Amino acid sequence: MTYVLHYAPDNASLIVRLALEHRGLPYRAALVDRRAKAQESADFRALNPNGLIPVLETPEGPLFETGAILLYLADRHGGLGPGPDDPARGDFLKWLFFLSNTIHPALRRLFYSEKYIAPAHVDALRAGTRNDLAQHYATLEIQAVGGWLLGGTAPTVLDFYTAALLRWPVLYPADQPRDWFTLAASPALARLSAAVEALPATHALQCAEGLGDTPFTAPRYPQPPEGSAT
Amino acid sequence: MTYVLHYAPDNASLIVRLALEHRGLPYRAALVDRRAKAQESADFRALNPNGLIPVLETPEGPLFETGAILLYLADRHGGLGPGPDDPARGDFLKWLFFLSNTIHPALRRLFYSEKYIAPAHVDALRAGTRNDLAQHYATLEIQAVGGWLLGGTAPTVLDFYTAALLRWPVLYPADQPRDWFTLAASPALARLSAAVEALPATHALQCAEGLGDTPFTAPRYPQPPEGSAT
Repeated sequence: MTYVLHYAPDNASLIVRLALEHRGLPYRAALVDRRAKAQESADFRALNPNGLIPVLETPEGPLFETGAILLYLADRHGGLGPGPDDPARGDFLKWLFFLSNTIHPALRRLFYSEKYIAPAHVDALRAGTRNDLAQHYATLEIQAVGGWLLGGTAPTVLDFYTAALLRWPVLYPADQPRDWFTLAASPALARLSAAVEALPATHALQCAEGLGDTPFTAPRYPQPPEGSAT
Repeated sequence: MTYVLHYAPDNASLIVRLALEHRGLPYRAALVDRRAKAQESADFRALNPNGLIPVLETPEGPLFETGAILLYLADRHGGLGPGPDDPARGDFLKWLFFLSNTIHPALRRLFYSEKYIAPAHVDALRAGTRNDLAQHYATLEIQAVGGWLLGGTAPTVLDFYTAALLRWPVLYPADQPRDWFTLAASPALARLSAAVEALPATHALQCAEGLGDTPFTAPRYPQPPEGSAT
């Protein structure tokens, strides 16, 4: 059994790729051509009716939602986070949902503001969203003081997710102010980013998606071998 | 062991209450006084740093995020959704995350718009959000044609969550247009709402939070025995 990861460079699919690589799971990556808006095609919507990347094809059908895919992999294969009977399960779930339903959607509002509001109000939405995000990152900074987001000695999918959510505001939207966020102002999150960056899984990601050699500590725009990040 | 559910009437905590009641789990409900903004107090933030209801106190500490609490209960006790090894697990997770990170946050943008954007732009955000929600409910309508959201013969926490997400736009914000949404236009979701309403768990909810006898098919403003919905 080989998973199929429908991905685009520097998309949320990178978080799933980190999980697959970290756990050494067999998968094939299938590019979704964002320049051609392939994620909105009928073929892709048959995998995810919401037209969003990533999708992971599994033996039981296509899975979407980054958080759902991460949790599915963690529970099926172990080694990616506390299992259902682990005393840390509750903490694991609450932070996974927080990343998925609070920080990730706020970044989407920032990156794709024009999907949320009429053009005359886009700048105001971006400004409000940056304020929200600053507060949410402050909450994460406190949670990260133990090293990995749940503490302990090994990363979980929460750390992969967090590193990505910290990378993107440094780069996107490319034509908007981005100096409101600096990783250096959050020392615990900076350490977490460096620790994720040092993992072999990140090296595999760098090569596959052209993210450069400091994708989480000093992000640069991707130069992917195939496809487009935007 | 008795759970403690920190709740407010007609808050997202009602979804957790339905799960606890449906599964017959022992719990005590602790009112969070929203009129006094108790959810923003230091005591409450010690349970959830984000200052949001619900919180479920468990033997392993306080749990927050509605989706996380639902999944925790489902996995620990069974009878609330497909377990980790069930072939339907992937579908269960992807729709749980979709409700949690797409529909639920969109309703928050509609109900608490002033937290997201400067006052001059609030109406524009509400208009954009109503458009988003209409599309998301259409996606759910297709998913619900099998009866329960995952099909099958028994409800899962997805159905409790969905029924709540369909109730609120009928009522809130009380001072804004609400005729953009009618349950009658979505026959599968209307059937799902009626099925959730017929459950004994819903009867217990009605009594505890004063939601009236048609909380999901014909919502009315709550008349709670304690506390305030807003």
